[in-house]
Amino acid sequence: MSRWIQPGDNEDITNERKKATFDTERMSAWIHGGPEVLKRRREILNFVKSVDDFKDPVPTEFMSREERILNNSRKVVAMTDNTDQIDGSDFFGEGMYYQALTMGRDLHAMSLHYVMFIPTLQGQTDDEQLDEWLTKAISRAVVGTYAQTELGHGTNLSKLETTATYDPATEEFVLNSPTITAAKWWPGGLGKSSNYAVVVAQLYTKGECKGPHPFIVQLRHDDTHLPLRGIRLGDIGPKLGINGNDNGFLLFDKVRVPRKALLMRYAKVKPDGTYVAPAHSKLGYGTMVFVRSIMIKDQSTQLGAAATIATRYASVRRQGEISPGKGEVQILDYQTQQFRVLPQLARAFAFMAAATEIRDLYLTVTEQLTHGNTELLAELHVLSSGLKSVVSWDTAQGIEQCRLACGGHGYSQASGFPEIYGYAVGGCTYEGENIVMLLQVARFLMKAAEGVRKGTANLADIGAYIGKTGSRTSRLTTHHHYTDSEIVEDLEHVARKQVFRAYDRLKSAQDHLRPEDAWNSVSVELAKASRWHVRLYLVKNFLNKVSLAPQDLKFVLTDVARLYAYDIITSSIGAFLEDGYMRSDQMNEVKEGIYECLAKIRPNAVSLVDSWDYDDKELKSVLGRRDGNVYPALLEWAQNSQLNKTEVLPSFEKYLGPMMKDARSKL
Amino acid sequence: MSRWIQPGDNEDITNERKKATFDTERMSAWIHGGPEVLKRRREILNFVKSVDDFKDPVPTEFMSREERILNNSRKVVAMTDNTDQIDGSDFFGEGMYYQALTMGRDLHAMSLHYVMFIPTLQGQTDDEQLDEWLTKAISRAVVGTYAQTELGHGTNLSKLETTATYDPATEEFVLNSPTITAAKWWPGGLGKSSNYAVVVAQLYTKGECKGPHPFIVQLRHDDTHLPLRGIRLGDIGPKLGINGNDNGFLLFDKVRVPRKALLMRYAKVKPDGTYVAPAHSKLGYGTMVFVRSIMIKDQSTQLGAAATIATRYASVRRQGEISPGKGEVQILDYQTQQFRVLPQLARAFAFMAAATEIRDLYLTVTEQLTHGNTELLAELHVLSSGLKSVVSWDTAQGIEQCRLACGGHGYSQASGFPEIYGYAVGGCTYEGENIVMLLQVARFLMKAAEGVRKGTANLADIGAYIGKTGSRTSRLTTHHHYTDSEIVEDLEHVARKQVFRAYDRLKSAQDHLRPEDAWNSVSVELAKASRWHVRLYLVKNFLNKVSLAPQDLKFVLTDVARLYAYDIITSSIGAFLEDGYMRSDQMNEVKEGIYECLAKIRPNAVSLVDSWDYDDKELKSVLGRRDGNVYPALLEWAQNSQLNKTEVLPSFEKYLGPMMKDARSKL
Repeated sequence: MSRWIQPGDNEDITNERKKATFDTERMSAWIHGGPEVLKRRREILNFVKSVDDFKDPVPTEFMSREERILNNSRKVVAMTDNTDQIDGSDFFGEGMYYQALTMGRDLHAMSLHYVMFIPTLQGQTDDEQLDEWLTKAISRAVVGTYAQTELGHGTNLSKLETTATYDPATEEFVLNSPTITAAKWWPGGLGKSSNYAVVVAQLYTKGECKGPHPFIVQLRHDDTHLPLRGIRLGDIGPKLGINGNDNGFLLFDKVRVPRKALLMRYAKVKPDGTYVAPAHSKLGYGTMVFVRSIMIKDQSTQLGAAATIATRYASVRRQGEISPGKGEVQILDYQTQQFRVLPQLARAFAFMAAATEIRDLYLTVTEQLTHGNTELLAELHVLSSGLKSVVSWDTAQGIEQCRLACGGHGYSQASGFPEIYGYAVGGCTYEGENIVMLLQVARFLMKAAEGVRKGTANLADIGAYIGKTGSRTSRLTTHHHYTDSEIVEDLEHVARKQVFRAYDRLKSAQDHLRPEDAWNSVSVELAKASRWHVRLYLVKNFLNKVSLAPQDLKFVLTDVARLYAYDIITSSIGAFLEDGYMRSDQMNEVKEGIYECLAKIRPNAVSLVDSWDYDDKELKSVLGRRDGNVYPALLEWAQNSQLNKTEVLPSFEKYLGPMMKDARSKL
Repeated sequence: MSRWIQPGDNEDITNERKKATFDTERMSAWIHGGPEVLKRRREILNFVKSVDDFKDPVPTEFMSREERILNNSRKVVAMTDNTDQIDGSDFFGEGMYYQALTMGRDLHAMSLHYVMFIPTLQGQTDDEQLDEWLTKAISRAVVGTYAQTELGHGTNLSKLETTATYDPATEEFVLNSPTITAAKWWPGGLGKSSNYAVVVAQLYTKGECKGPHPFIVQLRHDDTHLPLRGIRLGDIGPKLGINGNDNGFLLFDKVRVPRKALLMRYAKVKPDGTYVAPAHSKLGYGTMVFVRSIMIKDQSTQLGAAATIATRYASVRRQGEISPGKGEVQILDYQTQQFRVLPQLARAFAFMAAATEIRDLYLTVTEQLTHGNTELLAELHVLSSGLKSVVSWDTAQGIEQCRLACGGHGYSQASGFPEIYGYAVGGCTYEGENIVMLLQVARFLMKAAEGVRKGTANLADIGAYIGKTGSRTSRLTTHHHYTDSEIVEDLEHVARKQVFRAYDRLKSAQDHLRPEDAWNSVSVELAKASRWHVRLYLVKNFLNKVSLAPQDLKFVLTDVARLYAYDIITSSIGAFLEDGYMRSDQMNEVKEGIYECLAKIRPNAVSLVDSWDYDDKELKSVLGRRDGNVYPALLEWAQNSQLNKTEVLPSFEKYLGPMMKDARSKL
């Protein structure tokens, strides 16, 4: 009997849970990394539920921005007061879960403090600076952020306009924003919460520009929190999501900071202004890979939440009759509904598998690096950039599919979807805009293709398919006999074909264009190649992980993994047919395979989403609540509306009432 | 010289406008229906700009819901005070434009009053009721809404739970909500603004249920605006968009209304309780077609706005270098950027062409009906349902593509995108959920297919292709020689193939399943057939409209129309290849065609979006402003943030400040 069943639950959702052909507890353990992890999740959950400071006085959807900021600041102080409750070294596991439960999807005043400010100090300070600043940051004596992006400048760091000019007379740097477009813009917590920031500025000394460098700068007074002289800053206004964070702007008017404000682990400026270039270029790949594995887990968690809401709601919502006279059916029984929702669930599984794998690969690479082995490094860096791009886009699309599948109620903030979407879709843009990321992946793929053509390629596992000579036709017979390795071969073929299509077009464009123009002229094809490279990895990794699952879970996971793979294949039919690699009867087999997967997953759908182990506190959705008692909860939720605080609004008193009265007097 | 160029504009955007190879004023006239229409648009614009009551004290993005409701109520009274400024009979043209300029995308207290309440009175009242209620409604002596959807019931009207039980003793109906799921839920303006509603309830008389019927019901007191006895109602809370409207809930506790509350144009209840069934089933098709033509124009207008913002911003945003040392380039020069944004512009054009055509067809059909000719009626009804579905989905997707193409700034509400998306994507759900609509279209297509197979089909122009015997292979040679009629033939082939694929699968499913289960088991294929039916129409109609355009506009419009068609074809390559209809070298021609279209449209892109004639007041986007001076405007916009009203927030005083002080004391 599923632990998700409780007395008083909606009968339909209980019946769904009784139908499951596997044990949700064992599936949860498989998804999250073992029974010990589950046990820790529940300890953390119970702790969070026991602390009053983590409770929201009303659902956050009803709060103004000012109220959200205040509410979140209370919670983040409580959260960081209690970090002894979790294993701080396990951010991927316990840390992310603890933060999700306490802070939700609105982020908070100290998001950048932990994600960017502290890691930058750890990576960029010399020993003396580290002692001073890391102590202050970790003890929460200061709240910091990371100010790099400017109003007019994002990806291209070399064109940042903020300057830091060294004055040897006073041994100070002068920070200045020469134009409006030089305003720092977007950093989280910069507007109102932070009193310190790492500011990236063009370093000038002895009349020469040495490029962008990081400086630690105090922005607000320790006691009064007022901006220091020459500093103008504030909130940049409401956004599509994450409105509990005060993303800010910052302008400097010749602000003087000491020489030691420059973080000097690599580059240094001596008191006389002599610039000392960094001895080694920094090896930042590893951290970026780790950050992206966290992002991918986060995206997968959001998509899983959306699929959970849509699946549970579709099990309690009844509408329309399939058999006349037999009453309205659960909308989850409609094939179109299954077709909209279940592939999103499959994607969430695939992305979670990738997130875990990338985290583990990161550990392997870190270990290899200590032995001077850099074999996997470049490919792994490239893969994580590509994954970030494909996963964030598919997640955003998938969340909206789940929302639309809930009809009108999906549009209400009661559903949780608007918040989930607003939060998750930001991932398409931050940490490297998706198209820019895909084009970085393409640089690697083009080098690999060139290596293969010239016979000099040395490709590790992730890119090995580029150098393989595959079959010229698919070995698929019927979908019942379609093996994992055949699926992977078929995706390898398509990925390889697109890599070389892009490569050949690039070479031929280079015949008559300068290299940069040639690159631009084939960039759509390059981005496509990168997407296939990533999809191949996602499918291969997921199939592999499922093949290693315990037998009692494997049969249902296989349905999920097949649905994921078949959905990718049938979404790009042309890619498999255009060179005669697959025949249309073979493709029809894959299409049939989808319908079969949908039918097989249907009875397990609710238990599959239960296995993701979302507590209602994490899910934050009236439609997706565990007990399925959606309708009374919607009515109760709506009572919180700001508009319901007053029976007769000023809009009637001032405008609508007089209008109607005047009209009545003339009838 | 473009009228869009003014002194002080951003230099890049001015240069773009100078490059245009056509006259924007003539293009505007082509899009909107002639120079006279343009003249009227400008008169309306100037009037709206001259009225103080239409001005927002701060940009609406910074308002709370309470403030939005108040602001919108002031504006809607002013808007309806001044309807003499427009031709009220031309809602498709002048009415929609006037409302867009005055009310924006937040809607208002009287949205449903005009869109549903008055039309229902016009259609459903008997003569006596019409006199009483229409006079009150039009004079604005009452504010009404339309309450049909319930918390637990949407599409399937027969299962509505609200009851209206006739009591012959007092000659009254008793309205009652027997369960929570019977609560009326969603009607616009129901929560706080309306004092009347047309309520749809199950009519019971003499112990029998006669199905859902409309009743006019007073909800709030004329003078005090307090809810009448037995009525409980309120706002349903914040939504993904349209938060200036108080969508509401409504519960009846045995509320008595007079017998004449039943709108009696068709069905009647006599004083003794005798039910008189309607003589004719109402002919509602025409109105629905008209409403959907308005919806399609509205969607097209939102997508055009998104494309305008993204295109203008891409012309002033500079980032990255293509030629080293030549400075950063306009991001519109990146092929990937063009590939994201320009197809959205092409879609907006195609949708506007469809909206106009459907409106004209509606007039034709109305004319035909007066002669008893119903030839086109069913097909037109079906087409408009399908268009609603395809257009709203493509619009939502397109808006998000445009937003993402603007990078970080697209995520800010300053961009306008969050509001545009939140507003437009609602169209996927209201007026018939998209998948439900597609399956209605499929009913028609399956009938047509059966007719063709049996030789009894009698298909008007829109569905004629289903009965045609087309070529077995595409006639495409090179994209330079790909004619309009060949493009249409190719799409016809694919649409027809999918119609019969779905039909054959349906027939074969019917061999072993009950009809309803058979239908459900092929519903994904049915929905696909419907989408192709609609896409074919969209392409055919747009190509046709362009072929009739004046020569000086035709060359650029042809690029746009080709981009639209090629984008559809290359997004579903498999559909053209799978039966050998097209060869992959032919498909490569279409792919090349896209790149050529992008390159040709590039220099005209800004002037093409200018031609849509959005004033900044309508666009409401800092990124998309006419003058291109985006950066100072962003900085200025942000100053309105609620958080910037106070230099030091309570969150510092109460939480962050004490936390830091405590930590400092321990260092």
